[in-house]
Amino acid sequence: MKKSQIISAIKRKKSFLCIGLDTDIKKIPSFFLELEDPIFEFNKRIIDATHDLCIAYKPNIAFYEVLGPDGWKSLEKTINYIPKDIFTIADAKRGDIGNTSKMYAETFFNTYNFDAITLSPYMGQDSVEPFLKFKDKWSIVLALTSNKGALDFQKSKDTENTFFYENVLKNVCRWGDSENTMFVVGATKTDDLKNIRNIVPNHFLLVPGVGAQGGDLKEVIKNGINNEVGLIINSSRSILYASSERDFDQRARNAASEIQKEMAKFCKLIFK
Amino acid sequence: MKKSQIISAIKRKKSFLCIGLDTDIKKIPSFFLELEDPIFEFNKRIIDATHDLCIAYKPNIAFYEVLGPDGWKSLEKTINYIPKDIFTIADAKRGDIGNTSKMYAETFFNTYNFDAITLSPYMGQDSVEPFLKFKDKWSIVLALTSNKGALDFQKSKDTENTFFYENVLKNVCRWGDSENTMFVVGATKTDDLKNIRNIVPNHFLLVPGVGAQGGDLKEVIKNGINNEVGLIINSSRSILYASSERDFDQRARNAASEIQKEMAKFCKLIFK
Repeated sequence: MKKSQIISAIKRKKSFLCIGLDTDIKKIPSFFLELEDPIFEFNKRIIDATHDLCIAYKPNIAFYEVLGPDGWKSLEKTINYIPKDIFTIADAKRGDIGNTSKMYAETFFNTYNFDAITLSPYMGQDSVEPFLKFKDKWSIVLALTSNKGALDFQKSKDTENTFFYENVLKNVCRWGDSENTMFVVGATKTDDLKNIRNIVPNHFLLVPGVGAQGGDLKEVIKNGINNEVGLIINSSRSILYASSERDFDQRARNAASEIQKEMAKFCKLIFK
Repeated sequence: MKKSQIISAIKRKKSFLCIGLDTDIKKIPSFFLELEDPIFEFNKRIIDATHDLCIAYKPNIAFYEVLGPDGWKSLEKTINYIPKDIFTIADAKRGDIGNTSKMYAETFFNTYNFDAITLSPYMGQDSVEPFLKFKDKWSIVLALTSNKGALDFQKSKDTENTFFYENVLKNVCRWGDSENTMFVVGATKTDDLKNIRNIVPNHFLLVPGVGAQGGDLKEVIKNGINNEVGLIINSSRSILYASSERDFDQRARNAASEIQKEMAKFCKLIFK
């Protein structure tokens, strides 16, 4: 998917919401457990209930991998079920030496046909480059994450008083551009968002952590928005598990709709 | 597996060789392609031919994942086939927020019953801790990797003139100890090995990059060995693909044996 297509979708749907399909077999309504593929059936209902309100879906691969080979089948069916005009992100946080990263790129971009994958930058340029060779596919590199441990390394300072995450942003900008790379910036890090936006004015930022992790939606938007919106804001648990009853999908829709309405206000300002 | 069991195996086999089962469907002898599970059948032959010469096997998960759900079945069969006294490492380079890392830990330690997993430290303490909660299981954290991109971030310096990878070593030493954590240090980084050994005198180091990636075996051993050996040295391609003919397993054995013989000399010095 091209950047222009992502922006068109945002404009059309007045939304820059990504729904994290972190589907946990222990948390989905119990009646799904009687079905042959509970994970896919749950995802299907969530997608049916929310696809007009969001522009992206992001399965976290850990939740599928933990189920063994069957989990990968549920993942594949889920990806195939998502409407083709919706951006799909494999939240996999991969990264390895070149010949191995190439394998990961083939897995997620070809075998499973995702539009994007999240990557850890620790191993440097040759661990990211194999992903950048795929046309109209995206590398979403971890910059400043939403968790407490983000402080351990990402906010350490180098000899020039630069945060480590800032060096990640600057380096990745030399390897790719705003047409094939994005950055993960946690919604709990609103103070840093302005700084990040200054360093990468044109890149899309994938922002997890709104909802269950405590990130504030309005603050994120105010600090991170650019003139093309430039934000894909993810919410997982607060949408997927809004209810554990039969009406879970309607409740998920309501939760997504609340966020979308807030986003619509900002879209109106940007796309006058 | 406990540290004492790893050391016993080294003593008994006079070897600290790990064989990387990076089994590439495009590189294995073509006659395997006629079998139902070529990857597992190839691994089986490699394991049969080398298990007395090595103390660990390390499948890189990318090579299995790329094959879809069937790849995970081949991985599972491979792990079950490895003799129980051999250390098994999932080279997966995972790391995510706490609740997701917990999932990954369950996947590799319970579902697939690996002894160890490689982890990327970028997301900090709460991304590693869920793995440390499993008894007799190991977290092998990336410190200084064997690839060129290692220079991009791992060797950047902080305000106190400390390499970034040194901060990783020091931090991880506060989260776990030498009974549940190890570090990845590339064989191409022999200059740094002495420095690393000073910072973590008692930790095992997993050293990939000997062979195809150009690392020198003797130099690695001289710079990295401690009084319990403290090294697990990995070789993948130079053993697996020593030949593409019918005698590939004998040739793999020969390649492994060459390395083991060199290791035996050092084992003799350590375990007098």
